[in-house]
Amino acid sequence: MNVPGPALAALTDAGGVLIVGTGLIGASIGLALTTRKVPVRLQDSSPAAQALARDIGAGELASPGASAPALVIVAAPPDVSADLVVQALADYPEAAVIDVASVKGLIEDELQASGADLSRYLGTHPMAGRERHGAAAADADLFAGRPWVLTPAQTAVSVLSLVQGLVLELGASVIRMTATEHDRAVALVSHLPQLLSSLVAARLVDAPEESLSLAGQGVRDVTRIAASDPRLWAAILVGNAEPVRAVLADLRTDLDALLTALELAAHDPLATGAMSGITGALAAGNTGVARIPGKHGGAARNYAAITVLVPDQPGELGRLFSEVGDIGVNIEDFHMEHSPQQKVGMATVSVVPAAASSLVSELERRGWVVVVE
Amino acid sequence: MNVPGPALAALTDAGGVLIVGTGLIGASIGLALTTRKVPVRLQDSSPAAQALARDIGAGELASPGASAPALVIVAAPPDVSADLVVQALADYPEAAVIDVASVKGLIEDELQASGADLSRYLGTHPMAGRERHGAAAADADLFAGRPWVLTPAQTAVSVLSLVQGLVLELGASVIRMTATEHDRAVALVSHLPQLLSSLVAARLVDAPEESLSLAGQGVRDVTRIAASDPRLWAAILVGNAEPVRAVLADLRTDLDALLTALELAAHDPLATGAMSGITGALAAGNTGVARIPGKHGGAARNYAAITVLVPDQPGELGRLFSEVGDIGVNIEDFHMEHSPQQKVGMATVSVVPAAASSLVSELERRGWVVVVE
Repeated sequence: MNVPGPALAALTDAGGVLIVGTGLIGASIGLALTTRKVPVRLQDSSPAAQALARDIGAGELASPGASAPALVIVAAPPDVSADLVVQALADYPEAAVIDVASVKGLIEDELQASGADLSRYLGTHPMAGRERHGAAAADADLFAGRPWVLTPAQTAVSVLSLVQGLVLELGASVIRMTATEHDRAVALVSHLPQLLSSLVAARLVDAPEESLSLAGQGVRDVTRIAASDPRLWAAILVGNAEPVRAVLADLRTDLDALLTALELAAHDPLATGAMSGITGALAAGNTGVARIPGKHGGAARNYAAITVLVPDQPGELGRLFSEVGDIGVNIEDFHMEHSPQQKVGMATVSVVPAAASSLVSELERRGWVVVVE
Repeated sequence: MNVPGPALAALTDAGGVLIVGTGLIGASIGLALTTRKVPVRLQDSSPAAQALARDIGAGELASPGASAPALVIVAAPPDVSADLVVQALADYPEAAVIDVASVKGLIEDELQASGADLSRYLGTHPMAGRERHGAAAADADLFAGRPWVLTPAQTAVSVLSLVQGLVLELGASVIRMTATEHDRAVALVSHLPQLLSSLVAARLVDAPEESLSLAGQGVRDVTRIAASDPRLWAAILVGNAEPVRAVLADLRTDLDALLTALELAAHDPLATGAMSGITGALAAGNTGVARIPGKHGGAARNYAAITVLVPDQPGELGRLFSEVGDIGVNIEDFHMEHSPQQKVGMATVSVVPAAASSLVSELERRGWVVVVE
C-alpha cells in the first residue's frame, strides 16, 4: 500500500510536490506522500503552522533555492485558493497545480477571470475531514476509501491523468463532475443536512430542562453534526451560497406545505388534506433516504438488526463483538443506544439476514439478552 | 430483577392486569408482567392480534367470567384511546385505568368532555419503541432504562402511587409533567426531528445519482429516521398537530433568516449580515445540541474519540473491542463509518479523556492503525 505507484513515482522523478497551506488537509496529504517516499515541501502563511506540519513529518520546509516541484497542491480556504493557484501557475511554469477547497464554482470563476492559462490547473475536493483541524490532527490515511472529486474544465489530459493517479494511489476513489455539479451535490448531501441539523438543535436552546430528558436516539442522530465549528462552516456556506440557498428554498416549499397540513389537522384531525399532506412528506423522506448508497459504495442493503443488552462495564461490549466473531458472523453495522439512568446499553448489530436467526440463538445460548427486532 | 416488587405484588393480589390493545407496547407490557409472575389478560379488537400476543406469552385471553382486574392498561392508537378508557372506567368500577398513547393533551380533553370520574385514570407515555410493530416485535425489556412519562390531572394519590411503582418495577424511570408539557416536549425532541429528517431526505428524491455518491456520515445520521413508517407517524403528528405546528413555525422563522443571509452572500460574500447570520444559526445549533443529556441521564460529557481502521472481516471488530476490554478501558460510545469502495471500516470509540493516550499507544503496540482525532 505504501509503495509508490506510477503516478507518485513520476512525481518523485520530476521534482516532488509543493503543498501551499498546511492545515488538516494539506498536512494529511503531505503525510500520505512522505509515507510513500514522495519528496514534499511545505509552505504556509503562518510560520508556526508550517513548522508544526514539518514536525509531524508532512514534509520539509520550502526553501528559495530548491528545484521546481512537479505538482503544487493549494490546500487553503476557499476565499484565498484562486489567488494562490494563479500565483503557483506563475511561479512554476512547468508544474501542474490543483486546489482541494470544498467549493469549486467560485474558484473556477475567479480563475477564469484572472486570465491565467488553466490547462495546468485542476480543481479537486477530497471528501474527507474530521471534527478537529490543523496539522496536529493530520492523518496519512485520511483519504483512504473516501471519494475525491475532480472537476476538470480546461485541464490538459496529462495533468488530469497525473492527478487521477495520485488520488488513486492515496487510496481514494475518483469522482469526476463539473464544478457546478459538485457544488450542487455538496449543497444537497452535506450543506443542507448541516443547516437543518443546526436549526433543529437551535430549537432546544430555550426548551425546559425536563423536555430534554425525553430525548431519544432520533434527535441525537439528527443533531449530531450541529456540534460542528460555526466559523469553518460559515466560510464553506458563504462560498457555496447560491446552490445552498436554492436547495434550502426548495426545502422551505415542502416545509410550508407541511405547516399547512398541520394547521388543518390542529383545527380538525379529519380535515381534507391534513393526513395526506403529512403522510406524503414522510413517504417522500422514505424514498429519499433509500437512495443513499450503502457500505462500500454499493446499493443500500437491508441488514437484519439484532439488539443485545450490554452491561456498562469494561470489556462487555468487547466480549459481545468477540463472541459474534467466534460465531463466524460479520458485523455490517453497529449502533449503540444508552439508557438514561440505568447502567445498561443496547447494542444493535446489523448482519446479513441469512445469519440472523442462528446468531440470535447462539448469543442467547451464551447468556446474552437479545431483544427481538 | 424479575421478582415482583410491592406494586406488582399488590396488583397480583387484587386481580391482575387487563391489557386492551396488543400491539408492540401492549404485548411488551404483557410480557414484562408475565415474566414477573403478574396475571395478565389480553383483549384486542383483532382476534388474530390477541391470539398472537397470547402465543408469545404476553398473557391469557380475557374471558367474560373472569374476576375484575386491579389495573386496566389501554394500549391503543391515540384516536381511540379516550373511548377505551371511558369504557374501562365503566366496566371495572374499582380498577385503576391508564393509557400509554404518545399524545396526551387530546386524550385528556376528550376524557374531560366525557364527564367520566377521572380520579381512577392516569395518562402515561413510555418513551420506548422500535422500528417494527405488533406483538411479534414485543420485548419484556422494552422499557428497561427508558423514561416513562406520567401526566396526572385529577388522578387519586393511590392510583398515581400504584402506577409509579409499576413503572419503576418494569425498570423504567418516572418523569412527571402535565399533558401540555408532555406534548410540547415530544413535539420538540421527537416530532420536529422526525419531520426535518424527512424533509432533508425528500430533497434527495430527484438528486443526480452521482451526487449521492458524495454522501458521508453527516447526511446518513440526519436522515436515518426518515426511514420511519409514514402512516404510524402521520397518526402521531395529527394527534399532536398544534404543538408540532408551533415548533415547526418557530423553525421556519430561523430558516427564513438563514435564507436571507444566504441570498445576501450569494450576491456578495462580504455583504453586511451574511456571514454573521449564517454563523449565528450554526452557533445556536451548538448551544442547543449541548443541552441534550448524555449517557445515563447525566449531563452531556466530552469523551475522547479514537478512530481505528478495521478490516472488513468477521471477528475484526470483535478483536478490537476485546482488546480494548483487555486494556481495561470502558467504551462510552461507538460509531462506525464505512468507506465507500474499500473493504475497510473506521471504528471510532469514545472513552474518558484520561484513558485516551494510553489506549492509543496500547492499540498501536498491538498493531492497530489508529487515526489521531
